[in-house]
Amino acid sequence: MEAAVSLFNVKGYSGTSIRAIAEKAGVNVALISYYFGNKQGLMERLMIDFLEEYTNITEKGYRDLANSTAKDCLSYVVENLLKYQQQNHHLARFVHREVTLDSTLVRELMMTYFMKEKHFMKNIIEAGVKQKEFRPVASDFASIQIRALVTMPYSQPQYIREVYHLNPHETYFSQKYYSHIEKWLNEFLYKSVLV
Amino acid sequence: MEAAVSLFNVKGYSGTSIRAIAEKAGVNVALISYYFGNKQGLMERLMIDFLEEYTNITEKGYRDLANSTAKDCLSYVVENLLKYQQQNHHLARFVHREVTLDSTLVRELMMTYFMKEKHFMKNIIEAGVKQKEFRPVASDFASIQIRALVTMPYSQPQYIREVYHLNPHETYFSQKYYSHIEKWLNEFLYKSVLV
Repeated sequence: MEAAVSLFNVKGYSGTSIRAIAEKAGVNVALISYYFGNKQGLMERLMIDFLEEYTNITEKGYRDLANSTAKDCLSYVVENLLKYQQQNHHLARFVHREVTLDSTLVRELMMTYFMKEKHFMKNIIEAGVKQKEFRPVASDFASIQIRALVTMPYSQPQYIREVYHLNPHETYFSQKYYSHIEKWLNEFLYKSVLV
Repeated sequence: MEAAVSLFNVKGYSGTSIRAIAEKAGVNVALISYYFGNKQGLMERLMIDFLEEYTNITEKGYRDLANSTAKDCLSYVVENLLKYQQQNHHLARFVHREVTLDSTLVRELMMTYFMKEKHFMKNIIEAGVKQKEFRPVASDFASIQIRALVTMPYSQPQYIREVYHLNPHETYFSQKYYSHIEKWLNEFLYKSVLV
């Protein structure tokens, strides 16, 4: 699976053959066919694995609303989504790219995972606004903006590397980047409305 | 060229043949070959056209530092990048996707366009910090974050449409989204440090 993802990131999904994947992985084509059926099956499996865990992190943040502040829940989600992408950076890059295509699979994944993610994020933001922990913001735009900040270095790692000379796949980067997002959130969202 | 971009957005670059492009455009293959050489030539032309104008907008904001505030320069850049992407949304989506691949072309485009863009953005931010119009922020991270916010709806338009039921290709959306980015910038960056 790692071989597949690394080839997809160089040549794109359509530009990569099952034969090339098998060669890079040092296994034979039949083994891949046995486990995944075909290239489409392999891709689906990769995307589902990634999005399942990605969505679980947001869901955990949402469930914690019952016994923590909205601020802590949101910070938990942001920090752990960054860490998860940093640890699975090849796969993150592949999935973030593939979901920009107009396919039936992508539409299904959106209905299954991204709708849930939106639900959890909007609920965390709305809880914060309601409890006056957050400024009154439009939860849909705030949620889109937070997602933009969280995914950017992992959908565009090469840009970050070549243009900014920073390495999104390093723990150091995800921690530093997290602290910068927290600064935005502090000023924009968390600054007490009661001051 | 529109036919090519719309096919690339459904099937990806490698999944689209010159023949399919010619068919969709209602011209013959020879005409495309005459103008662009081959599919690679067509793609290069599309990406360069898009990035040339994209970079020009940021450059204009940077040049205006000579006779406006850093805040006005940055707002100009953000507003016009959103408008430009909204007006060229098919192309924007294609380019934002293709630059996530590891190819020689992408590396060259980064050196040519993205390095310039970074230079302009960092200079605007640093000018604002120096003149105490902006809070003291790390200009590289702030620049990455602003780029994340500005490109998100146009690299992921289908996500915005299907999950949030908003339409990034409409003027209404780009204006509304701009006002939300301005709110972030107001709280995070522009809030006077002298209060």
